[in-house]
Amino acid sequence: MITGAEYRTSLADGRATFFEGERVEDLPGHRVLGGAVNTVAACYDLFYDPKPGALSPLMTIPRSADDLKARIPLLHQADLLAHTTQQSIMTLITAAGRMPDLPHYGERIKAYVEELQSRDARVAECITDAKGDRSLSPGKQPDADAYTHVVERRADGVVIRGAKLHISGASLAHELMVIPTKAMKEGEDDYAIACAIPVNAPGVRIVDVSYAPRHDDNRAFPITSQKHCPEGFVIFDDVFVPEERIFLNGEVRYAAVFAHSLGLWERLGGLAFMAAEADELVGFGQLIAEANGLDRAPHIREKISDMIIHTTLIRASLEAAVHNCKMGPNGEAFPDELFTNAGKYHGAANYSHMVRHLHDIAGASTVTAPAIADLENNEVGALVRKYMSGAEGVDGEYRMRLFHAIRDLTADAYGGWKQLANLQSGGGLYAQRIVTRKHYDLEEAKKRALEFAGMADGDD
Amino acid sequence: MITGAEYRTSLADGRATFFEGERVEDLPGHRVLGGAVNTVAACYDLFYDPKPGALSPLMTIPRSADDLKARIPLLHQADLLAHTTQQSIMTLITAAGRMPDLPHYGERIKAYVEELQSRDARVAECITDAKGDRSLSPGKQPDADAYTHVVERRADGVVIRGAKLHISGASLAHELMVIPTKAMKEGEDDYAIACAIPVNAPGVRIVDVSYAPRHDDNRAFPITSQKHCPEGFVIFDDVFVPEERIFLNGEVRYAAVFAHSLGLWERLGGLAFMAAEADELVGFGQLIAEANGLDRAPHIREKISDMIIHTTLIRASLEAAVHNCKMGPNGEAFPDELFTNAGKYHGAANYSHMVRHLHDIAGASTVTAPAIADLENNEVGALVRKYMSGAEGVDGEYRMRLFHAIRDLTADAYGGWKQLANLQSGGGLYAQRIVTRKHYDLEEAKKRALEFAGMADGDD
Amino acid sequence: MITGAEYRTSLADGRATFFEGERVEDLPGHRVLGGAVNTVAACYDLFYDPKPGALSPLMTIPRSADDLKARIPLLHQADLLAHTTQQSIMTLITAAGRMPDLPHYGERIKAYVEELQSRDARVAECITDAKGDRSLSPGKQPDADAYTHVVERRADGVVIRGAKLHISGASLAHELMVIPTKAMKEGEDDYAIACAIPVNAPGVRIVDVSYAPRHDDNRAFPITSQKHCPEGFVIFDDVFVPEERIFLNGEVRYAAVFAHSLGLWERLGGLAFMAAEADELVGFGQLIAEANGLDRAPHIREKISDMIIHTTLIRASLEAAVHNCKMGPNGEAFPDELFTNAGKYHGAANYSHMVRHLHDIAGASTVTAPAIADLENNEVGALVRKYMSGAEGVDGEYRMRLFHAIRDLTADAYGGWKQLANLQSGGGLYAQRIVTRKHYDLEEAKKRALEFAGMADGDD
Amino acid sequence: MITGAEYRTSLADGRATFFEGERVEDLPGHRVLGGAVNTVAACYDLFYDPKPGALSPLMTIPRSADDLKARIPLLHQADLLAHTTQQSIMTLITAAGRMPDLPHYGERIKAYVEELQSRDARVAECITDAKGDRSLSPGKQPDADAYTHVVERRADGVVIRGAKLHISGASLAHELMVIPTKAMKEGEDDYAIACAIPVNAPGVRIVDVSYAPRHDDNRAFPITSQKHCPEGFVIFDDVFVPEERIFLNGEVRYAAVFAHSLGLWERLGGLAFMAAEADELVGFGQLIAEANGLDRAPHIREKISDMIIHTTLIRASLEAAVHNCKMGPNGEAFPDELFTNAGKYHGAANYSHMVRHLHDIAGASTVTAPAIADLENNEVGALVRKYMSGAEGVDGEYRMRLFHAIRDLTADAYGGWKQLANLQSGGGLYAQRIVTRKHYDLEEAKKRALEFAGMADGDD
Repeated sequence: MITGAEYRTSLADGRATFFEGERVEDLPGHRVLGGAVNTVAACYDLFYDPKPGALSPLMTIPRSADDLKARIPLLHQADLLAHTTQQSIMTLITAAGRMPDLPHYGERIKAYVEELQSRDARVAECITDAKGDRSLSPGKQPDADAYTHVVERRADGVVIRGAKLHISGASLAHELMVIPTKAMKEGEDDYAIACAIPVNAPGVRIVDVSYAPRHDDNRAFPITSQKHCPEGFVIFDDVFVPEERIFLNGEVRYAAVFAHSLGLWERLGGLAFMAAEADELVGFGQLIAEANGLDRAPHIREKISDMIIHTTLIRASLEAAVHNCKMGPNGEAFPDELFTNAGKYHGAANYSHMVRHLHDIAGASTVTAPAIADLENNEVGALVRKYMSGAEGVDGEYRMRLFHAIRDLTADAYGGWKQLANLQSGGGLYAQRIVTRKHYDLEEAKKRALEFAGMADGDD
Repeated sequence: MITGAEYRTSLADGRATFFEGERVEDLPGHRVLGGAVNTVAACYDLFYDPKPGALSPLMTIPRSADDLKARIPLLHQADLLAHTTQQSIMTLITAAGRMPDLPHYGERIKAYVEELQSRDARVAECITDAKGDRSLSPGKQPDADAYTHVVERRADGVVIRGAKLHISGASLAHELMVIPTKAMKEGEDDYAIACAIPVNAPGVRIVDVSYAPRHDDNRAFPITSQKHCPEGFVIFDDVFVPEERIFLNGEVRYAAVFAHSLGLWERLGGLAFMAAEADELVGFGQLIAEANGLDRAPHIREKISDMIIHTTLIRASLEAAVHNCKMGPNGEAFPDELFTNAGKYHGAANYSHMVRHLHDIAGASTVTAPAIADLENNEVGALVRKYMSGAEGVDGEYRMRLFHAIRDLTADAYGGWKQLANLQSGGGLYAQRIVTRKHYDLEEAKKRALEFAGMADGDD
Repeated sequence: MITGAEYRTSLADGRATFFEGERVEDLPGHRVLGGAVNTVAACYDLFYDPKPGALSPLMTIPRSADDLKARIPLLHQADLLAHTTQQSIMTLITAAGRMPDLPHYGERIKAYVEELQSRDARVAECITDAKGDRSLSPGKQPDADAYTHVVERRADGVVIRGAKLHISGASLAHELMVIPTKAMKEGEDDYAIACAIPVNAPGVRIVDVSYAPRHDDNRAFPITSQKHCPEGFVIFDDVFVPEERIFLNGEVRYAAVFAHSLGLWERLGGLAFMAAEADELVGFGQLIAEANGLDRAPHIREKISDMIIHTTLIRASLEAAVHNCKMGPNGEAFPDELFTNAGKYHGAANYSHMVRHLHDIAGASTVTAPAIADLENNEVGALVRKYMSGAEGVDGEYRMRLFHAIRDLTADAYGGWKQLANLQSGGGLYAQRIVTRKHYDLEEAKKRALEFAGMADGDD
Repeated sequence: MITGAEYRTSLADGRATFFEGERVEDLPGHRVLGGAVNTVAACYDLFYDPKPGALSPLMTIPRSADDLKARIPLLHQADLLAHTTQQSIMTLITAAGRMPDLPHYGERIKAYVEELQSRDARVAECITDAKGDRSLSPGKQPDADAYTHVVERRADGVVIRGAKLHISGASLAHELMVIPTKAMKEGEDDYAIACAIPVNAPGVRIVDVSYAPRHDDNRAFPITSQKHCPEGFVIFDDVFVPEERIFLNGEVRYAAVFAHSLGLWERLGGLAFMAAEADELVGFGQLIAEANGLDRAPHIREKISDMIIHTTLIRASLEAAVHNCKMGPNGEAFPDELFTNAGKYHGAANYSHMVRHLHDIAGASTVTAPAIADLENNEVGALVRKYMSGAEGVDGEYRMRLFHAIRDLTADAYGGWKQLANLQSGGGLYAQRIVTRKHYDLEEAKKRALEFAGMADGDD
């Protein structure tokens, strides 16, 4: 395993990262992205075990419901890139099990995963393509590069071209797991490509954006100033991939397997994250209600009860997904797809409603509380503290810090990012509904209905 | 154990049942209630085991999560009165464990439960009082009888007076479990009374109502003509209760224990029932969409996906409640209260929305499809069949029967009863929210929020 | 104008009505449909003006926003068949104005409307076809009769065949307005038929269903026992239509004009009806909350506030639709389509939620209150009255009657019919959304958004 | 009237403004607040009329429904401070009419309004107090200053102390309208104070916060970089108010009149603003759907239809409020309170749902689209443009600018502020429900329900 310091050093590998129009020469030293490097490094240090041959607990394969359950609190301590790394590993393992007739891919995947574990590497998930005109399939696009594809086949590998969007932590990872964004049809063979590419491979260029705060005073952003992660726009400008890093190459029938496998783990991660986050929203709701002296007001209690029911349903889905896990061909434990998807959908669809409740409970000071720095001003500091005090014993500064935390979490750049990320991770609400439906036993439900109506075969 | 026939005979015990203004002399032979007797008798026969000393699997105490889970499909085959019987048993067992300092009640309960098991008796749950002016507590009512209370204390027992409302199956049961409807205060000792009373005890009078169909032709009510259960308005007009059947008598601090214990099992039962029912609604939605030739229409699929997510969340809550069960002092397994309540609330709150989806999918023929008898009319029968045919291969009669089943289930008297029962069992949505909140760890949520905001003790 | 008595007599014209398998020989004397005849007759009497040449105010053409507004309370007093009559008249007038290049149809319509006015006739709206396989268009159906069509062309008219479903009051009307259910394509000329047909025309057969109560005691159904209307399944078994009663005959480009015109008036009627009904639901909610002694409870007040906001939004849509009315070519006032549709959609989509609120407020006695007849029983009457009393001064019978009214209105057969009718009149929620979208100025909204984003033409 | 340039000059009047810990010496030149000054100045220039004695159309009193309606598009062009100015004028006029027995206040108000009109001044609305412990009333607070109150009475006026929170544009206005935040009780006379105070009066100190962007490149914030307005935390540290600027002074019975009057106009303004904004959200939804090539996808169309219905209901409420306006004692037109409140509530409660739809339509690029500056980078500019292109003919830059606009409007600091402002202006959802309820005719609804149930006086 490697330390945070070793991780920082590893980034100086010639990778091509861009931010707001400029190439980033020194990632750890960058005014915005440097903070994101710190976040990743801190997670390395948190899980570091100096024993030779030690493996990060985030990178092993769960073998039972208990294993799956034990991983959830670990992941909650991990940063986003550690999440995507374990999701990538599980995605590859899951996909390997679903292509039993192509064992050479399974062997490559196994070898690659072992290498990742021993290197303690970080992996970003490259799935969503540029897509061009979304009403057209990959093979029908005016610009053939709208979906990532093979543009040249060589004896020892392939050359790919395209772009992958919304790639969390791309420029902070060591490896990019590149997979088809959807099912492909006959004739779209060149688009059925899955592979692993080092971030610093020639031809890879990453344009980052970030919700990290730009204000002078981080006290206004107590949460996001401490932990943030950029989103990368990853361009493959004719990148060579050697044979041993190719996990699918033209077998269109399996093009969707990777996305479906990733979807499962991404939604499980999303579900676990939303469960923890929903508890935090409840906590903030109750804390600010108490600070405002309104925690006994019936309508405030109703809203908090609503938030509690919401978080409990998400948690229940997670519990049910884990307890009903399915075992893979090599003894891997996979969460139940139906429960995972339904819970993820519910959490995503209702997140904005929960935030509305929190804002309704907290009040307008969420966005109008003066800066912490105002407390230090000679002319107004004491007055701001006095008038920002709430219920008896609630200091003005404490209450202001709560407001800033709630705003930072839900009513500023991160809140916007979070809302989109909740909706879109796993493919947007529409896709999430389709996937849920796919995993439900509709025939059994029809059978039950017919029996109930006295219309089953054999009834009168 | 007893058979259905023995059950029928057992009802001729002098019980005082009333229906639409008249006293019912012969329950099994009654034009409406007779059908309900059939429903109970059929359940007796279904579970009958002639082995001497055999116990109904519905009446035993679960000892593990697996026991709890195994019971769910059994209950789904059982009638409502079998449900209330096992809920009553579990309520008494649960309450006994919560009054460790009053062991004599525990012993009476144990003896009573064993008697119920050996008699294979049926029990109705008598909880909701008349309540008079609901803004006043029991001890402040203008009419002291608004809540059931002790009006006389004798050496060998007590005499009670009052009424209990919405008592499912009361006049079909053998025993009435009478418990306080809510917490009582000091001075309300006479209202802190829990006991068991035979249905035919002198002074007990039961006024029944029923959603059972009154039409001439049962084919219009394929579901409710086969299975229904009356609601009893149970009057205790000075009923004597012997000492050994009294399970609480004046200890106001425990008055709420019975209602809370019942609530847990009632909501678990409600949750299990709603999970099965929600699957049936999905089944009907898909069947009628197929019969209409609309199952590929995107907006129809969206609605069915919504219904699937709904039923999956209910199922997830049930799974989580069972897997996280708590063990009682004597090894009884109790479902987790938080998951049970949140799931029950969600199911109840969204039931009418699911029905709206089903109605939107099915269309107006749900309530306008001609009678099955119209198919037999010489002048119009063939034409009705012809014009009620739907997608290719869908016969007019099949489609009509689906419409009648959906109407019977969701858009007629039973549908109304169901909607109210879903909302009100467990005390109305408001009460369900309060109970859910009570079982959530709000302090832990606050702690997490403070940590997340960097405001936990020890943070700078 | 004619009286209720004259109306009754007019029904003995040989019409072929069927009900639950039997032909109805005497409509006014029929055990179920007779009540519906009474409802229509009462409305005739209510508006009867003996002056020779008097016209029913329900049958005239509105000429201004004030006219439209003045009609709303009149319609609220009218029965459903009077509604459909005025909607039919306005539909024909509206359609006539939209086919300026086919003036002969306009003239026939004008003559027909004048005849209807002078006969004071009642008209049923025949729109929805049997539809067969809904995924196929009319011309592609395996059974060519799935949509009503011309099967023979004669010198003096046409012969039509098909069935129309969900035709409110069909067998109680004098005339059937038959119009295409949707747009037709080239080659579907035979399906582009609009015409008027007397109910007693040879070949017309009507199969009725009804939500009217079948209980012995009408006091359990205080609302629907007084006022109900059957739904007809109308079969055209080769019916001849003379030339002067044909309003469209093969001009496929205008096939949808009638349905769209009807939709406007049907939705306006639906909107007006829902506005009145929503006020009644609020009224029942407040009355039963007061009777229960719970009208000061915060959560009850919240629910009533929700219901108030709902009814006010419906009312606002109605006001906006009327105030923004458009004038037709001959000075007729048409309500604004956008406001009408949006309001109708909102009312329909949220109706079940409002009913849920009412049920949550009222409690389980809505479906478990004893019968009024039980009050008259010697053994239990006084006790039922005593225990059904609520807040101080609230008599048991009064409260029971409120419960019966609420159940009759929202939790029994009529409630189911109402829910379906709300959703489906105007074509189901999906169709209502499409229509709303069609009438919204999307280009203007795009223009505003671009301006707001600084991206309008002319911006840098 | 004055010009933008004259307005800028007018700000150098010694006012005490603070921002992030520092006193602001030069408002127009301030790095953040300077932009807000530009926004106000631009509005002055837009409405400037050099004619001597000309009055701003925003500052006159509406006399009819037409006047009210005509004002709406004007206000849409105006900045927030012009809104608060006209709301303040209408609040004072409305309140004057509601205190007929205190005519001296009415006269002072009239004189003050005329002065405001002739000075073309800007007014901020100071209503919400610090409130301390919100479970206690003003007179019971541990800190007597938690609500603004009179601390000294002099012959020529009073001295007040307290703080007012969330005061939009306070430090950019000329005048502060100070009114009680709620009803006061007997004994709370000192808190029943309404008055006008110049922004630069001795003792007034304003601490500003702002959602204005801090990024280097305004192209990432096309909307908020052009138009923003700070929120002021206004401290009255013993401020003298001369007699002629006092509009209420101890008459506790009228303490709530000002807040209610302001509420009416604030909610009307909020409603009008939300109607325009909702159209813009629809516009952005359609534009980005088209740019993505997804505008024909059924689920996208469904979401846009939902948004259209939402905006139409808000618009309908506004129409109904204006058409049903009430006339004041001096001929002023007041919008209908019921429609105003119901519409405002609906808009506020559903805003976050509409934003969720927009985000679901737009996709994750809303928050991950590269910066416009990235297009200018030699290494990646062309590739970013290529891969950000969408449907045929949609240029990458155009699509990126749409994403940036949507993020700026709904998923960044302004989006958070907007969400809170929507919920909280008018007092939070709970208060808005109460107010709506207050203006609904509940007795009439009860009467109708009883009639419908056949239970009205005079019925059998």
